[in-house]
Amino acid sequence: MTTPPGVSSSDFAAAIRQFADAVGEQWVFTSDEDVSTYRDAYSPMWGEADEKVASAAVAPETVEQIQQIVRVANRYSIPLYPISTGRNLAYGGSAPVYSGSVVLDLKRMNKILDVNEDQAYALVEPGVSYFDLYRHIREKGLKLWIDCPDPGWGSLIGNALDHGAGRTPLPYRDHFGAHCGMEVVLANGEVVRTGMGALPTAETWQHFQYGVGPWVDGLFSQSNLGIVTKMGFWLLPEPEASMTGQISVPRHDDAVELVRILGKLAFQGIVNCVFSVQSPVFGGPLDTEKSALLDRPGGGSGEEWDRYAASQGRPFWQTELRFYGPLKVIEAQWEHVKEQLAAIDGVRFTDGSVIRFPLTDEEVGRLADPGSLGIPSLSVFSSLEGSSGHLDASPMLPYSGETLLEAHKVFMKLFRDAGVPLLLGFAMSYHWRAFIMFQSINLTRDPAHMAKARSLYAQVIEVASDHGWGIYRSHAAFMDAVMDRYSFNDHSLLRMNETLKDALDPNGILSAGRYGIWPKHLRRERA
Amino acid sequence: MTTPPGVSSSDFAAAIRQFADAVGEQWVFTSDEDVSTYRDAYSPMWGEADEKVASAAVAPETVEQIQQIVRVANRYSIPLYPISTGRNLAYGGSAPVYSGSVVLDLKRMNKILDVNEDQAYALVEPGVSYFDLYRHIREKGLKLWIDCPDPGWGSLIGNALDHGAGRTPLPYRDHFGAHCGMEVVLANGEVVRTGMGALPTAETWQHFQYGVGPWVDGLFSQSNLGIVTKMGFWLLPEPEASMTGQISVPRHDDAVELVRILGKLAFQGIVNCVFSVQSPVFGGPLDTEKSALLDRPGGGSGEEWDRYAASQGRPFWQTELRFYGPLKVIEAQWEHVKEQLAAIDGVRFTDGSVIRFPLTDEEVGRLADPGSLGIPSLSVFSSLEGSSGHLDASPMLPYSGETLLEAHKVFMKLFRDAGVPLLLGFAMSYHWRAFIMFQSINLTRDPAHMAKARSLYAQVIEVASDHGWGIYRSHAAFMDAVMDRYSFNDHSLLRMNETLKDALDPNGILSAGRYGIWPKHLRRERA
Repeated sequence: MTTPPGVSSSDFAAAIRQFADAVGEQWVFTSDEDVSTYRDAYSPMWGEADEKVASAAVAPETVEQIQQIVRVANRYSIPLYPISTGRNLAYGGSAPVYSGSVVLDLKRMNKILDVNEDQAYALVEPGVSYFDLYRHIREKGLKLWIDCPDPGWGSLIGNALDHGAGRTPLPYRDHFGAHCGMEVVLANGEVVRTGMGALPTAETWQHFQYGVGPWVDGLFSQSNLGIVTKMGFWLLPEPEASMTGQISVPRHDDAVELVRILGKLAFQGIVNCVFSVQSPVFGGPLDTEKSALLDRPGGGSGEEWDRYAASQGRPFWQTELRFYGPLKVIEAQWEHVKEQLAAIDGVRFTDGSVIRFPLTDEEVGRLADPGSLGIPSLSVFSSLEGSSGHLDASPMLPYSGETLLEAHKVFMKLFRDAGVPLLLGFAMSYHWRAFIMFQSINLTRDPAHMAKARSLYAQVIEVASDHGWGIYRSHAAFMDAVMDRYSFNDHSLLRMNETLKDALDPNGILSAGRYGIWPKHLRRERA
Repeated sequence: MTTPPGVSSSDFAAAIRQFADAVGEQWVFTSDEDVSTYRDAYSPMWGEADEKVASAAVAPETVEQIQQIVRVANRYSIPLYPISTGRNLAYGGSAPVYSGSVVLDLKRMNKILDVNEDQAYALVEPGVSYFDLYRHIREKGLKLWIDCPDPGWGSLIGNALDHGAGRTPLPYRDHFGAHCGMEVVLANGEVVRTGMGALPTAETWQHFQYGVGPWVDGLFSQSNLGIVTKMGFWLLPEPEASMTGQISVPRHDDAVELVRILGKLAFQGIVNCVFSVQSPVFGGPLDTEKSALLDRPGGGSGEEWDRYAASQGRPFWQTELRFYGPLKVIEAQWEHVKEQLAAIDGVRFTDGSVIRFPLTDEEVGRLADPGSLGIPSLSVFSSLEGSSGHLDASPMLPYSGETLLEAHKVFMKLFRDAGVPLLLGFAMSYHWRAFIMFQSINLTRDPAHMAKARSLYAQVIEVASDHGWGIYRSHAAFMDAVMDRYSFNDHSLLRMNETLKDALDPNGILSAGRYGIWPKHLRRERA
C-alpha cells in the first residue's frame, strides 16, 4: 500500500480502518488494481515517476459519512481528493493533484433529490450524471431540458464546479452561473447550506442564488475549500422548436465585422446559442502554398490570405447559429440576424432545418448533434480514435475579430514551430462574453511524445498569458503554471486564496494543490 | 467629537490626523454639522439613543489613499464603514451599522474608467452614479443602455454589492449577476483583482467573470470583507424597439395559471422584463365589504373574493409586460404570450405602444416610466410625499400562484392586525426566478410611530421567515434579526462567514455588523 507523503504507515492504516468503519469495508479501496482505476487516463505523465496517483479511495454514500471521513482525515493529516464522477478528462480525470492523496469518490451519492417541472429546476447529489438526470426527466415525461457538456457521462456538480459549459441557450449552458443553492461539507466537518438554503424550510433555495450576506458559492468552484454535496440547477422548459442557420463571409478581415455584429446580437439575447467562429482556410489542410504563407514574417497579410482562400474556393469564416423557441419568434430572430449581417459584402446564408419538440426516442436516436439540444451522448469520443487522449488548454478571448485574427497567427506559429499539427481555426462562445479558443494537444503513451506535449502545453500557457488571453481551466499537472500567471500585485489573489484556505481548512486535508492553492505545510516545502 | 467605542480620544485624534495626512485636511469630516450629513434620512430610530451614527468621515480619491486609511485604522482599531454614494435609502443610507464608525466615503472616486461600445461594458469606480454613466454614454452618443434602480442617483457598485436590481432585460437588471471583474482593497491594505483581472494585461477582465481558481467576487457583496474600488458591468446594446402588453385575468385562483405560464415564458427568455403581478382587488381601496372578507377566518375563500371582485368590476390580477428588441421579434413574442395565456378563461390583452430607439432628449423628457428603458430618474420620490421615508422588507417568493395567494393573506392579516394600512397587492420579478413581495412601511419622525414601524418590520421578518420566504436585503437596523433566521445547522453559514471575517479582517476594522457579521471582539461582547 502506498502511503500519503508525511503520513506514517501505522497512521495511514488506522485512518483506512476508520474510513471502513464509516462507509463499510467494501467501499474503501487500497489494492493496486482498485486504486489504478483512479488514474488519469489522459495523463501527460502516464507511467512516469511524476504521474499523480492516489494512495487509496473511499466512497461514502451519505453526508454523515463524509463528515466522519473528514474528521478522520483531520486526525491523521490524510490528504483527501474529492471527485464527483471523476470524468474531468483532459483536465486531470479522477487523479489527485497531489500524489498520495486518498480519492474521496462521491459516485455513490447519486440521488436526484428534486425535479420541479413548473419551476424548472433540479436538486442533485454529486454522483448524478447528465445521463442520469436526462433519463429521469425523460421517464417522467417532464417538459424540461438539461444542458450537458460533450461527453455526457460526467457529473452536473463536478462540471459546474470546474466552470464547464454546454451548448443550449444562456443562462443554462453556463453551468456554474445557472446553479442555485449548495450544500457543502467544510473541512471541519460542518455542513453549510448557501443562498436561501440557510433558511430552514426555505421555499426559494433553488430560486434565488444570493440569499443574504456574502455570497460564498464561488469559493467552492475550481478550489479546495469544501466538499459540495448538493447543488440546485435551473433548467430550460422545453422549447417549441429549434432551427439552424449557416453564415459564411469571404475575406480574412471580415472576421472583424462578423464578430462585432454577432457579439452585439448575443449581448441582446437575439443570438443565444453557442457559435463557433470557424475558418475553413486556417483550419483546412496544409498544402505548400499555405505553408509558405505561414512561414512569412507576420504569418501572411490579409490580401495574401484572401488570394489563397479564393484559390481554394473556400469562404474565410463561417459559423452556424441555432435558435430555440416558438417558431415565429426564432424565424424573426434569424431574419434579423441576416439583416444585420447583410452589411458584410459577400456574406452568404443557408437556412437549416427546423426541429419541433417533443421528440420520440427514435427521433432522438437519429440526431446528428444531440448535445446542442441538451441530450447527453458519448459521440465526441468517436473523433478521438487513435490517440490516448488529449490535453486542452483553453485561453479566453474577447469578442473581437482583430484579436481572433491575432490569436490564430500566434497559435498557428507556436504549433508550427513545435512541429505539431494544430487542429485550429475556431473559437467557441460557450460562456457569456468570451470565446474559448481551445488548443487541443493529442497524447500518446510514448514518453518522448508526452514530453513534447507537456512542453507545448506549457508554452501555450505562457504565450496566451503574455497576450492577456487568460486560461480559464487547466489540467491538474499545470495548475501551478497557470495560476502563476495570475500574478497581479505580486500574486495578491493567490495570497488571499491561501488565507481563505488556512482559515477554512487549517490542516490542509482537502485537494492539496488544486488550482494552485496549497495548504500551509506544503506551501512552505514548495517555496 | 464623538469617538468610536473602545478607542481613546488620543488614539482617535491621532487617527484623524493621519487620515488628514493621507487625503488632505478638507476631506476629513469631524464637525457635528458635517457628520450629520451621513445620518440615515430614513432611520427608524431618528433622534433616538439607538440611532446608528458616524463619529467622523473621510473621503479618499485614490486606491493608495484607501490603503493608507486602512493601515491607520488597523493601527488604532478604528471601525470604518465604506459607502459608495450612500444612497442605500430604506436599507440604511450612509449611516454605519455600528455606531461610532468612521464613514469611508468613496464619492470622490467617481471615474468612469472605460466604456466599450462594441464589447458593451463599463468599468467604473464606486462614486460613479447611474446618472453619471447615463450622461457619459449619452454625451458620447454610444448605443448602449445601462440598467438602473429607482431612484437613479445611487452608485452602480454600491447597488450591485447590495444585490439590487433594475428593470431592463436579464441578465442586465441583476446588477451583481451582470458585473464582471472587481478590484478590492482588503482590510490588510492589499489590492486584489478578481476574475481575469488577476492576469496582468488581461484582455477579458470585463468579459469572463470567473477567472481561474475560486471565484471570490460574491464575498464582497452584502458583507464587510473588503472595499471594492473598481467593478465592471455588462451593458445592453441599444435595442431597436420596445413595446408593452397588458394582461388581466378575472378570478382569484387565476393567479395559479397566470404565474405558472409567465414563469415558463420567463425561464425560456420569451418574457424578459420585470413584471409585477398585481391585484387591483387586494390592492384597491378598503371598503366595508372587503374589511369583512379580510376578517373572516382564513381571510375569505376564492369564491367570496371573486364575488367581491365582480361587484367592483375589477379583474383580480393584472400585469404589464415589456418587450425589447427588433420589432418583428418582440411582436412575435407578444403573440406567443397571448397564445399561451389564452388557456385562462376570461383573460384580456391590451396592446401597448411601441417605442423606437434612439430617443431625442425631448422624447426622453416625456417618458412616463424612464426606468423601464434604463434611464435614471428621481421620479419615484414623487410617490413618497408626506412621509419621512420608509422601511422596505423584501421577502422572496417562488414563481407560484398558490404561494402568492397565501402570502397576500398572511401579510394582509399581519398589517391589518397591526392597524397599519398596507400598500400591497403586487410581487415583482426583479431577479431571475423569484418574486420580491415588498412590504413597505412608512416612517415619520414621531417616536411612537417609529416604534410601531420597527415592531411591524420585525414581525414581517419573522412571519416571512416562518413561511420560508427569506428576506433578501435588509435595513441596517435589522440585519442581525434577518440573519438570525438563516440558521440552518446551528447557524453554520454565519459561523463560516465569521471565520472568513477573522481571516481577512483580523482586527475587525471593516463595516462591523454588516449583514450580521461582527468582528471577533464585538462578537464576544454581544454574546
